[in-house]
Amino acid sequence: MTSKPSSPTWRQKAAKKKERDLAKIPNEWRLPPITIDQAKTRCSIADDFIDSLLDPKTTHITNLDLPILMQMTRSGSLSAVELVTAFCKRAAYGHQLNDNLLEIGFQQAIEKAKSLDYQRALKQPVGPLHGLPITVKDQFYVKGMETSMAYVGWIDTFEGDRSSPRKDNVESEIIRELESLGAIVIAKSTLVQTLGAIETNNNILGYNQNPRNQLLSSGGSSGGEGAVQALRGSAIGIGSDIGGSISIPAAFNGVYSIKPSVGRLSFMNVADSSPGQSIIPTVPGIIGSSVASLEYLLKSLISTQPWLHDSDVLPLPWREQDDVLNDSHLSFGLMEFDGVVRPHPPIQRALNMVAKALSTSGHELIQWDPPAHTTALEIHKKNEITCANGGYDIFERLALSGEPLIPEMRSSFPDAKATTPLDAIQIEKAVIRLRAYKAEYHKYWMSTAKNTITGRPVDAIILPVWPSAAVEPGKPIYGGYIGFANVVDHSTMVIPVTRADMHIDKLDEAYNPVGEKDGEIWKSYDPKLYHGAPAAVQIQCRRLEEEKLLSIGKILTSALSEL
Amino acid sequence: MTSKPSSPTWRQKAAKKKERDLAKIPNEWRLPPITIDQAKTRCSIADDFIDSLLDPKTTHITNLDLPILMQMTRSGSLSAVELVTAFCKRAAYGHQLNDNLLEIGFQQAIEKAKSLDYQRALKQPVGPLHGLPITVKDQFYVKGMETSMAYVGWIDTFEGDRSSPRKDNVESEIIRELESLGAIVIAKSTLVQTLGAIETNNNILGYNQNPRNQLLSSGGSSGGEGAVQALRGSAIGIGSDIGGSISIPAAFNGVYSIKPSVGRLSFMNVADSSPGQSIIPTVPGIIGSSVASLEYLLKSLISTQPWLHDSDVLPLPWREQDDVLNDSHLSFGLMEFDGVVRPHPPIQRALNMVAKALSTSGHELIQWDPPAHTTALEIHKKNEITCANGGYDIFERLALSGEPLIPEMRSSFPDAKATTPLDAIQIEKAVIRLRAYKAEYHKYWMSTAKNTITGRPVDAIILPVWPSAAVEPGKPIYGGYIGFANVVDHSTMVIPVTRADMHIDKLDEAYNPVGEKDGEIWKSYDPKLYHGAPAAVQIQCRRLEEEKLLSIGKILTSALSEL
Repeated sequence: MTSKPSSPTWRQKAAKKKERDLAKIPNEWRLPPITIDQAKTRCSIADDFIDSLLDPKTTHITNLDLPILMQMTRSGSLSAVELVTAFCKRAAYGHQLNDNLLEIGFQQAIEKAKSLDYQRALKQPVGPLHGLPITVKDQFYVKGMETSMAYVGWIDTFEGDRSSPRKDNVESEIIRELESLGAIVIAKSTLVQTLGAIETNNNILGYNQNPRNQLLSSGGSSGGEGAVQALRGSAIGIGSDIGGSISIPAAFNGVYSIKPSVGRLSFMNVADSSPGQSIIPTVPGIIGSSVASLEYLLKSLISTQPWLHDSDVLPLPWREQDDVLNDSHLSFGLMEFDGVVRPHPPIQRALNMVAKALSTSGHELIQWDPPAHTTALEIHKKNEITCANGGYDIFERLALSGEPLIPEMRSSFPDAKATTPLDAIQIEKAVIRLRAYKAEYHKYWMSTAKNTITGRPVDAIILPVWPSAAVEPGKPIYGGYIGFANVVDHSTMVIPVTRADMHIDKLDEAYNPVGEKDGEIWKSYDPKLYHGAPAAVQIQCRRLEEEKLLSIGKILTSALSEL
Repeated sequence: MTSKPSSPTWRQKAAKKKERDLAKIPNEWRLPPITIDQAKTRCSIADDFIDSLLDPKTTHITNLDLPILMQMTRSGSLSAVELVTAFCKRAAYGHQLNDNLLEIGFQQAIEKAKSLDYQRALKQPVGPLHGLPITVKDQFYVKGMETSMAYVGWIDTFEGDRSSPRKDNVESEIIRELESLGAIVIAKSTLVQTLGAIETNNNILGYNQNPRNQLLSSGGSSGGEGAVQALRGSAIGIGSDIGGSISIPAAFNGVYSIKPSVGRLSFMNVADSSPGQSIIPTVPGIIGSSVASLEYLLKSLISTQPWLHDSDVLPLPWREQDDVLNDSHLSFGLMEFDGVVRPHPPIQRALNMVAKALSTSGHELIQWDPPAHTTALEIHKKNEITCANGGYDIFERLALSGEPLIPEMRSSFPDAKATTPLDAIQIEKAVIRLRAYKAEYHKYWMSTAKNTITGRPVDAIILPVWPSAAVEPGKPIYGGYIGFANVVDHSTMVIPVTRADMHIDKLDEAYNPVGEKDGEIWKSYDPKLYHGAPAAVQIQCRRLEEEKLLSIGKILTSALSEL
């Protein structure tokens, strides 16, 4: 072969990577084709369905919550090998059903678990995450594993450089911390090519479906991690977020998440889009199956004093004193409708349930009517901060293999090429607008002190993550409830509340949309199609209030369980 | 007058503003012209000289340290009016001798002091800064006072807008905090036009001379505040820093300063150059006459919980536990020479004194040999981050009046016009270089754990602020010891150590410079010219370690006093 190969090549490379990963699944964990085919016809492949395919021991272990699992491995009642093996098996099943892993490292993970068990046998101290099997979005570098970030041109390279000694040899700081605590990365989850869309799609694994309703998207850009967590393919997962990329998949897949404020966790040595864009930085976040899991992991990470290793992390130890768990009278701002797009009936119902649960528990809710979120979104994206470089890095990376841009990104790049970058004057003007918006939002928040019974500003705000319970591929979308959180740098948490129910969540035919976008989104609601899709809400606290946020998450889940 | 006036106008406007401020000095505080003329022929006009011009009561009060003054006003043994009047008088004397105030507000200040005394008489609570007379760099907005930032085109306007209702009506958040604690702004100090040079000069007040050696510069860009503090024109001052603008004037004028890391104090609603440049942000800092004063003010400011008013301030309460005052064995990195420009003999001697004082007190010093500071300076300025916008805002502001750029800025803008702004791609590449430098510096710092007796990384580093004891107008300069601190966001403090002494600090004629810059700077040392100029060192702690830094400042000054 002397001529330079053209378009088929990227397809071949992508297919080869996919096959290579499938080949890492041991024969005894392979699902029969008929099972895989049957699964495709189902609405949900999560929960009972995947449980029913697994052996009872694996089902049992993988349905336990993280803190319990850690109690077991730390006390020695469960070995690290047993724990890691159980989750690897489940992750393998999940991947065969849902194509959610871009890189598999089961064998390596089990070896590491053996080594941890050996250390324990030698009576060496065990970390708080002893043997914890985790998955991470395929942006994080793990030694011995490939990071392609779903770029075909990055396969078998370090960020496109075939001869780099850094290939498979770089470690993100947060991965170092996790491993130092005893955690083990078993696989890396799929994500949106470019990270710029909210439906996970790429040219290696294709469109990632929602395990809880396969007609819908798993969200994005950490969609693979959301899907893995919905299928319990690991005990907890790490994703990243610059405009909702943690919260959206958590909500769509019916799992819990926390996105801390900038500087709480390390994002050092992580692959990213526009890695030099530092005005609205990407942050790592956690996706898991309970508030307790998120808290356990975040607290463990902070116990490593990440600021000693990454000076971009703030020297903020865990602040138990910020816990409001015993506060019997909290105030919440509740946003049921942002005035632009009214949430679909399942989301409305979820919000009502939350309001009822909290008020029944003695807490107060006031209406949340902040500076328009659409202003924040314009500053965030539209010819502004996060797109300031015109996408040059994206197109350089695509050009490495000749792969096309995913359809979900075409609205951002209608000509399928990079646009003119902003100049410093334009960027600085955008920063001034951003600063003004942040100040206005903060002022509004603080002004609520005059409206609450406590006389304090609201403790947190509650609002939809998305106007619909996940989204149907290719249908209109509206992100007005989420992206502003990164502009104002709130700490945010997603709480799954209920599931869309065609028998309850009827379409209000008489609804008169307030505008074009409202009409489009309202029309996209199909009670039958959405049936079973997770309906979540988000809680936001102010900047760097993660401890408070987690305690409010516990208060809300407890109140919901008593409804 | 119908034709549009040309160049004379800006001179007239500038002269009018200068006269207007002089006219605010009451007759009884006017110095006779002969005194002013005599002062011009002196080397130093600070200390004994200005003391000798004042009445004994004013001299006594204005030479007391801030914590003592606050003990007196809070207990009622000194009234706010007495305190404010004393400092206004001294500031008036200092201004007549040194042209360091761009805006005078004595009358308003004394009225506020009366009101505070009235409150005290009514037994209302007094704040920790009860009646504290302060000066602030003319970037900070104070209600009822003009902010020109030394732009002629901003005189009688709000940032050039003549009809703005915001004129004299905006308040910087940090000013609100200071006033809420009982502090009173008595005047605003002069600064570098554009803030971009290290010698304070502008077209309103002209070149600001160093009160302790009038042949030299007061530094910049907060040079006026440095000069005011050297003359004790207020009890403490607020300046700002993006590349040494607090530390340089503190060092040149022989006073103390602290520049906290980004996010420790509010910089909300402050006039600035390139206000939208957020990658290396400007921070406020404090210049004063003792470590205890700096600590008292910083602690008081943080007690107001500024993060509740400005979400860009980090929620970091005062951390007493980070104090290392009782640690009898600390480790320091000592940089005596950066390998590029060797400090002048007075600075070398200051460093030797510090090393001796600390080692005599039982502390350890190891050689500090970090990643090249010149790399940081290139990232900071040269066609990079802080100059990314090409200076368009500067030239817009100059055009308002037609005033020229000061000569000290000509090397930055040789064509006296704005340059092409960088684009987002260039900026993002600079951010990646910045991040790599920060990570490398941090790694180096942490790596010193293997070289210290304590087994910990060094607690702080000690280095020159500037290679010379102030600078002679128009002579070559070298900023390699200071600007990197803003790139890596260290907390920094300046400690005056000694004064240049022509009898001790001889020029080593045999010195063989290591390069061209070294040769230029070495040659610029003239023992006679520099005689009496302050020689300082700086202490730097890591990011957001202000409490630790202040305690180390106390340890060093105490050790120096025992030499």
